[in-house]
Amino acid sequence: MAIRMYDLAGADPARRFSPYCWRTRMALKHKQLEVETIPWRFTDKHVIAPYYANPPLLVPVLIDGDVSVTDSWRIAEYLEEAYPGKPGLFEGEADKRHARFLKHWTETQLTTPIVRMIVLDIHDCAAEKDRAYFRSSREKRLGKPLEEVVADRESTREELARLLLPLRNVIKEQPFVCGAAPAYGDYVVFGHFQWARCVSAFDILAADDPIAQWRERMLGLYEGYAAGFPAA
Amino acid sequence: MAIRMYDLAGADPARRFSPYCWRTRMALKHKQLEVETIPWRFTDKHVIAPYYANPPLLVPVLIDGDVSVTDSWRIAEYLEEAYPGKPGLFEGEADKRHARFLKHWTETQLTTPIVRMIVLDIHDCAAEKDRAYFRSSREKRLGKPLEEVVADRESTREELARLLLPLRNVIKEQPFVCGAAPAYGDYVVFGHFQWARCVSAFDILAADDPIAQWRERMLGLYEGYAAGFPAA
Repeated sequence: MAIRMYDLAGADPARRFSPYCWRTRMALKHKQLEVETIPWRFTDKHVIAPYYANPPLLVPVLIDGDVSVTDSWRIAEYLEEAYPGKPGLFEGEADKRHARFLKHWTETQLTTPIVRMIVLDIHDCAAEKDRAYFRSSREKRLGKPLEEVVADRESTREELARLLLPLRNVIKEQPFVCGAAPAYGDYVVFGHFQWARCVSAFDILAADDPIAQWRERMLGLYEGYAAGFPAA
Repeated sequence: MAIRMYDLAGADPARRFSPYCWRTRMALKHKQLEVETIPWRFTDKHVIAPYYANPPLLVPVLIDGDVSVTDSWRIAEYLEEAYPGKPGLFEGEADKRHARFLKHWTETQLTTPIVRMIVLDIHDCAAEKDRAYFRSSREKRLGKPLEEVVADRESTREELARLLLPLRNVIKEQPFVCGAAPAYGDYVVFGHFQWARCVSAFDILAADDPIAQWRERMLGLYEGYAAGFPAA
């Protein structure tokens, strides 16, 4: 039986926009594994509750035969262990530590400014049944109406550009974050860019940002797999 | 003949505070190599000019017999090549890429907030002959008097604490940035902390920051080598 994955979807079931699910999607492609994705919405907590002992109940959830795994990092570790004959997501322990730092960097430095640019677009893409929940939970977290959060996103883009300096410098030196070829560290960062691309027509990168070239390379991997998902 | 290194010093020649020289000092200890350091001041550009084809003329400059090497990263690469029988600064290519990302992250994200906390202290520690040059070049770069730059350093410390989140998360998971033992990636980041420690009595970390524990471990390496240099 194919691997299955609960995957965040919008009102349009073809719109798949979770940055963490994108990490897992790219990891599965890298390992040449097929996956059957199951569209899941923010308010479908009950559907994935059986896979969790405690909240928060989040996607991705991966189901591989009798095994279920939650959390994109643990899923990557699971895939490495369960499919050692397939291409490795990590070149070794040092590369895994690098990917782990990139995970912490992406989540703690990039998430907030990206949210401040696209949160209203996420709301507008979300399934009808998710919108009230999404708006109230995010407005509580951000402290103001979503419309106000995104009002000055050109400034937020400049702020993000400064936070992206280490990535930009690396990409000026080599084609992928992980060197000559992509590995899990690339997918960790790319998930956030694909998240924005799938929900928002506002580009979180300036047109002349060298990072855009890396993003294009990522979109083109595996016969244009990620590019095949429509941009907003 | 021992390896020699031009090393930034203050009015007190024992005060050695360049973050980049500290990377090289720790790398030399890691590789069990002796070094004779030559105190150098900001305005001693002419002294190191013979080692450069073009400005900027910066320390560290390493001289090993007939070979001279500038730039702390290139010095690390040189030491790896020239002394392959000694402990490695990088566990392999993936670990080197990790250290390179850490270099870009440290330099683009941590330098500015640290400067905004300690720049007046650097001025006050600097050699008498360096002070006018240091003040005018830094005030031009920062756009205001050094006294104003450091006036609200408690807020800057909070800003730095947010930028340090990826390091903090890693240090909660493992003793060193590079895993169970320190490697060049640790020295790259540590140089900035030692820079602050050697010139300023203001702690750039809050007392309860878990990163302080890593800093203590770094200070204690090689029989307390870095701790042996007096804090300001």
